[in-house]
Formats: sequence, C-alpha cells, structure tokens
Amino acid sequence: MTTTSRFEPVELTKAYRLLNHGPVTLVTSAHQGRRNIMSASWVMPLDFDPAKVVLVIDRNTYTRELMEQSGQFALSIPTRMLAAQVLAAGSSSGREHDKFAALGLKTFHGSNQELPLVAGCAAWLECRILPEPDNQQRHDLFIAEVTAAWADPACFSSGRWHFADEQQRTLHYTAGGAFFSTGESFEVDPGA
Amino acid sequence: MTTTSRFEPVELTKAYRLLNHGPVTLVTSAHQGRRNIMSASWVMPLDFDPAKVVLVIDRNTYTRELMEQSGQFALSIPTRMLAAQVLAAGSSSGREHDKFAALGLKTFHGSNQELPLVAGCAAWLECRILPEPDNQQRHDLFIAEVTAAWADPACFSSGRWHFADEQQRTLHYTAGGAFFSTGESFEVDPGA
Repeated sequence: MTTTSRFEPVELTKAYRLLNHGPVTLVTSAHQGRRNIMSASWVMPLDFDPAKVVLVIDRNTYTRELMEQSGQFALSIPTRMLAAQVLAAGSSSGREHDKFAALGLKTFHGSNQELPLVAGCAAWLECRILPEPDNQQRHDLFIAEVTAAWADPACFSSGRWHFADEQQRTLHYTAGGAFFSTGESFEVDPGA
Repeated sequence: MTTTSRFEPVELTKAYRLLNHGPVTLVTSAHQGRRNIMSASWVMPLDFDPAKVVLVIDRNTYTRELMEQSGQFALSIPTRMLAAQVLAAGSSSGREHDKFAALGLKTFHGSNQELPLVAGCAAWLECRILPEPDNQQRHDLFIAEVTAAWADPACFSSGRWHFADEQQRTLHYTAGGAFFSTGESFEVDPGA
C-alpha cells in the first residue's frame, strides 16, 4: 500500500505540532470487531510531555460509545483531497452500517492492531483515554495521552509542516460545508 | 478610533465559528487596574448554546493570575498584520511592565469596562470563567461561557469568515516562530 511507505514516526514530544494549527480531524474508534469514524474540529493539544490532547465528542455518537468501551481512539489528519469525506463523516451515523466503506475510506494499522487509521491522511495519532468521568459526562470532554504518532514525510518532517501543493494541505472547518485549507507559511524572527 | 467603527456584534450561538478553524488567539485579563496579555493556540469551542470555550493557560502566567482573580478574560483573534506581536506576547511576561505598551498594542472595551480587547484584530470574545478547580489545577484547563462576541465585518459577517487580503487573514501557530495564515476557502456540497 502506498500509504505505509509514507508513514514515519513523529517524536511524542513534538506530536502537539500535528494539531497546534487547529486542523479538522477524523476520529476513529473500535471495540470487539466494531469500528467507526467521525470528523471533529474541537480537538487540541493539552500538554507536551507526556503528550496529551483534549477533544469534545458528543454523547450521542457511536464513535464515543466505542471510545468509552475500548478506552482508546485515533486521530487522522485529513488533507483537502478528503474534504468531501470529512464533511460526510460528520453528518451520518455508523451505527447501522460500516461508514468507512460507505465513504470509500481505506484504513491501515499503526502500532495498535484494533484502531483503524485513515489512509491518505497527512498525520495520525493513537491515543489512550485518561478516564475523567466528570469531564466526559458534564462537558463531553475527553482527555487522552498520545501513545504513538506518525506523519507522511511529504507533509510533515523534522517537526515541521510543509505542504507541496494545495490538495495536500490540511483543513480547517467552519460551518455549513465551508472549509479553509491551511494557508501560506511564514516565520517571524523572535529577535525582531 | 477606526476599530470601533468596524466592530459588530456576533450572535452568541454563532460565536463558535470565530474559533472553529483553530486560529491563534490573544488572551487578555485584568483585575483592579492591573492587566495583561498573552498568546494562546490551545483554545477551542466547547459548546454552541450557551456558547462555551475551553482553553489551556499555564499556571505560571500572569494572565492566569488575573483570570483567576477576576473570573473573566477576553479573546482577541489577530490577523497577519499582528503576527510579530503575537509571537512576542507569547514569549515575555507582563508581571514587571505593561506588555500592551511594550508591544505597541492599542486596546478598547466591548461591554466590559475592565477587560481590554486588542485593536486591529478580526474578532473578539468576552468570557466568564465557569469555576472548575480540578480542571484548572490538574490540567491548566479553563472552561468559560462566552458572554459577548464581535467581529470586524470586513473579515466576518453573517456567520462567515471572508478575508479581503493576505494581511487580514487569521493566524495558525505551529512552533519556533512559524505560522500559517488561514488559507483558501472552499465549500463541499453536503448532497454530493
């Protein structure tokens, strides 16, 4: 598979850089042979070392049910090529059918043989939920430790994002089917 | 002041759209005549109605001290024109001097006469902290209700971002002084 050849580990203390610019994510979860996927924008880093993330997952989603049963989930960071699937993954439920197949999404495994990672994405994070019943119940808020991370070196290497062309850029969701791609990169001299 | 003439209310149930694409923010706080500002990327929506946000604010910051004393803070969403100040606001402390003056940042007030909003930004949110001692102490995580929001209609109107030129685009921070601007906008047809 092409994807496995473009799949390199990201140092865990730099995993926050995969999410720091606020891209939309695909959340996948699996338990006892069942699996699901949904899109989520409300995902951000929480800590550097150990690397943690915090995300909001609605209590009515099937993805959440599988997250809570398995204690884990993965984040795949899609590029513009997958924008239509990202939108569709956020607006249908996978309770009744396999949403991956319905959306034409291929998956592969990282270090965890249960958790599907979405092929064709720019980066991936495997996460272990740190149980916080109060946050989960009252706020739909999950806190998790990042246990492994990878990126396609065509998009992210040496701790930096770099996008070769518009279709490989990561996505930022607003509302009603409207996205932004990640734009122009520039640096500010801290000494200036 | 030019800014006040380009400052229109955003419906609170649509305030999440100001943050949904993951822009870097400037967090301001004030208490009893003291005030401060810092940049923060780890900020995201938590709920639509009532509008809530969640953000990570390090326990050693002066901004946090003033947030905890006053129970409130504001978020200003800067554009590329302010990138140098955003970087500098994240790398110096305001304990010893007025960081607004040091950075050449002008401020104004929204509905709260204590909280400074940063002039020249694209949007602003005033927030009231919902006290969560456990999240604050263990995770540096703050949950707050958005009590008022505004945007510069040149950048955001009718619930949508629209950027006239590159310098007016919002920012996404990665690391080491490297930013992305918010890129190309596009829509996916949900029926497709």
